[in-house]
Amino acid sequence: MGVDLNSDLGEGFGAYAMGDDAAMLDVVTSANIACGFHAGDPSIMRRACALAVEKGVRIGAHVGYRDLAGFGRRALTVAPAELRDETLYQIGSLAAFARAAGDRVRYVKPHGALYHAAAADRALADAVVSAMREFDPELALLGPAGTEMENAALAAGTPFFGEGFADRAYTPEGLLAARGTPGAVLGADAAVAQALSIARSGKAQSTDGGTVAVRADSICVHGDSPAAVEMARRIRAVLDESDSPVRAFGG
Amino acid sequence: MGVDLNSDLGEGFGAYAMGDDAAMLDVVTSANIACGFHAGDPSIMRRACALAVEKGVRIGAHVGYRDLAGFGRRALTVAPAELRDETLYQIGSLAAFARAAGDRVRYVKPHGALYHAAAADRALADAVVSAMREFDPELALLGPAGTEMENAALAAGTPFFGEGFADRAYTPEGLLAARGTPGAVLGADAAVAQALSIARSGKAQSTDGGTVAVRADSICVHGDSPAAVEMARRIRAVLDESDSPVRAFGG
Amino acid sequence: MGVDLNSDLGEGFGAYAMGDDAAMLDVVTSANIACGFHAGDPSIMRRACALAVEKGVRIGAHVGYRDLAGFGRRALTVAPAELRDETLYQIGSLAAFARAAGDRVRYVKPHGALYHAAAADRALADAVVSAMREFDPELALLGPAGTEMENAALAAGTPFFGEGFADRAYTPEGLLAARGTPGAVLGADAAVAQALSIARSGKAQSTDGGTVAVRADSICVHGDSPAAVEMARRIRAVLDESDSPVRAFGG
Amino acid sequence: MGVDLNSDLGEGFGAYAMGDDAAMLDVVTSANIACGFHAGDPSIMRRACALAVEKGVRIGAHVGYRDLAGFGRRALTVAPAELRDETLYQIGSLAAFARAAGDRVRYVKPHGALYHAAAADRALADAVVSAMREFDPELALLGPAGTEMENAALAAGTPFFGEGFADRAYTPEGLLAARGTPGAVLGADAAVAQALSIARSGKAQSTDGGTVAVRADSICVHGDSPAAVEMARRIRAVLDESDSPVRAFGG
Repeated sequence: MGVDLNSDLGEGFGAYAMGDDAAMLDVVTSANIACGFHAGDPSIMRRACALAVEKGVRIGAHVGYRDLAGFGRRALTVAPAELRDETLYQIGSLAAFARAAGDRVRYVKPHGALYHAAAADRALADAVVSAMREFDPELALLGPAGTEMENAALAAGTPFFGEGFADRAYTPEGLLAARGTPGAVLGADAAVAQALSIARSGKAQSTDGGTVAVRADSICVHGDSPAAVEMARRIRAVLDESDSPVRAFGG
Repeated sequence: MGVDLNSDLGEGFGAYAMGDDAAMLDVVTSANIACGFHAGDPSIMRRACALAVEKGVRIGAHVGYRDLAGFGRRALTVAPAELRDETLYQIGSLAAFARAAGDRVRYVKPHGALYHAAAADRALADAVVSAMREFDPELALLGPAGTEMENAALAAGTPFFGEGFADRAYTPEGLLAARGTPGAVLGADAAVAQALSIARSGKAQSTDGGTVAVRADSICVHGDSPAAVEMARRIRAVLDESDSPVRAFGG
Repeated sequence: MGVDLNSDLGEGFGAYAMGDDAAMLDVVTSANIACGFHAGDPSIMRRACALAVEKGVRIGAHVGYRDLAGFGRRALTVAPAELRDETLYQIGSLAAFARAAGDRVRYVKPHGALYHAAAADRALADAVVSAMREFDPELALLGPAGTEMENAALAAGTPFFGEGFADRAYTPEGLLAARGTPGAVLGADAAVAQALSIARSGKAQSTDGGTVAVRADSICVHGDSPAAVEMARRIRAVLDESDSPVRAFGG
Repeated sequence: MGVDLNSDLGEGFGAYAMGDDAAMLDVVTSANIACGFHAGDPSIMRRACALAVEKGVRIGAHVGYRDLAGFGRRALTVAPAELRDETLYQIGSLAAFARAAGDRVRYVKPHGALYHAAAADRALADAVVSAMREFDPELALLGPAGTEMENAALAAGTPFFGEGFADRAYTPEGLLAARGTPGAVLGADAAVAQALSIARSGKAQSTDGGTVAVRADSICVHGDSPAAVEMARRIRAVLDESDSPVRAFGG
């Protein structure tokens, strides 16, 4: 028993800072590091990899659309062949910094709009998995369970790990409630409770008051504000005291 | 005896084409492939690597400044630590495509303004070499002999190969005549003769009518126009009939 | 009677060339000049505006998504408020060069994926028109007749001019056949005939062999290859000899 | 008697925030608004212009190098003709938002590395001034007095206003001490004192303990941190109580 905690890190760009990477690397077991397309730059990637290795946190490639202006959150119709190439480029660039830090990239998690697109569209999911396998067949995919991402990974023989969210409300269908809708983002207490519920029972309360299955090997927490970091710390503490303590997925 | 021929390839971007990669890969033994900073994109990098492997041409990382608008030809004061990171990023990204094509990156050649800056500034040359060694200590550096690039490589134990230019006039000091000046770019006949002279005797005629040493393991040819491709073919043919035929540097 | 001819110009970027602007400015009456988002840069914009004024061709802002890597051809979910801002930015930048050349921007034509999105989505069309009106209420919109672009313009009191395509096949619904499908792009003879038909009768042959209405004040021709320029010249010549000669729209 | 206060605003990009524009617009009389090259994006420009107009602050174009990764702080060898075009592009884009907010651009201040380059290089200063005059001959230039920027403005008949810095140490030559050097950035008390000294007597203490002339119609203050905003407020308060109260330059 146990559950992984992951967070999006290295999301600054040049003079722009975002989040508190050092603080979050004391909380999580897996670091999704941006690769310069939707966020991140080479020096930020180096620092994030070095810090992750120093703190014993695993390095994952947080691959996204080439859309810095939109932070990778806008849907963009990238053809599967091009997406495969852009994914491979991003993995390769991060791998160089992971190597310089004495480690390697262990997994890939699509970011933002690509996360949603690859969950819903098999051709896009296949493109991501194809790039992963070209680079290193042992790379794992981290994403929402029961989606085309999982299907693509399973079909290719790529290890897949399911992801749940601590602070996002789930619909009865098991999807994330859209950001704009009321109640879509949970407060700290509710997020802690949801993380615990997902980790212990694989279930979350859904927006209709019922219960929905959330099959998660890893729970995503955020560090983009001091309050978010504090919430992440609470989640970590509560999980570590539970019968599902925090530990890296995949062993 | 023998000399390498290298060319800058994969220099398109998105909808923009530049040069005839396929034609040049029939002429050269080393392909300097752009890595997405001054030119190139993931899909172009994949195609260039695949074609290079198919035609038995070695893959080199053509690393440049992050300046697509200026095609990497404008001087930019990048701090050494940042240059090291940007170089490592570019090598890593190209290495992923080299791997997908069944090969690996064999050498690094700085592009444009970075080529000139790293030749003149030891701290920048050290930054490039440092990134190369972090990625793979066997990576060779291709650049102008007798410069800080060579000094940095020698000091680090990195293999270094000198480069000469077929179609660019040399000053008495052994530098390239500035592009704007009259006679700085040679016509086809003169370029063929200069390539042959560099390959056979390590010398070129300088702009003052004298002779200047050009220590070159590799000669750079261009493919950015049909005339340039034709010139490159003539140079290859003339060299192959000489006592210094074309062969990849470094064995 | 008469019809305007328009073409997309100024589509290079930095070292990258695209199309033969000077040749096309001898053929067309309206120049859709890229504004630096999907293509174009400040120096290219200056040259295109200066040439247009010199040749008596009207200047239009060819506004697109901020996606140089995709040349503005990929769908991107830009929120209406942001699209309005990006449209205003592009119009403003081009207007500075039009002013420097002694003229002003007369119309706006959305480019690529934005053209299709604004034709289908009223909120996006409204965003484009809103930016146009903020800048200059006399600016006209050039786009496909009978779409949300026309609706948005009409509702706002913005002049609207319909556009037809010489070399693209029309579906029975009056839409452009998708680029990938067989017969979607017409050869030179068919394109000349279609331009003449649209200009004289407001009709084109559709992909099912029937006839479809194409209400066009302006016909789009291309200059991205020597053959395209030659086709454009033929279309101009044939129209000028017809009872619907080429003249700028809107008087 | 009186002195202007200016600040760099609108320096975020996409998801990245920088500084507290609203707070600073309560302090300053002139807003240098980034135009999307070194920082800023269309929506940020709209908000900054609207806020400036709402608070009665004049709008200036903060033009910079096209180097978002370096925040415009890295020297870049842009040719004068290209710099003129990039300056005109940026002025034009900001002018559209100023117009939408009911005002217009009143002045231009080069940013970062361009500020230093145009102060030292007459050809670059002329390029900036040339673009300004093409757009609107009434545009004023804000920059360091006694430099090539002032020379270029004077020669062209462009209004020029000198700028001093509250929190940066001056060398005996009247230049800013390099950021890296000890004491180059002043603390709050020293900055308040220096602002007052520049405003009242046109002098500042130099790094060698002497006094140096700083001819300034406007004093630059920063808002990139809560402490910086607080320092700016103190400077404003002290100046307003002095015999050189804060008022916009140029009447």
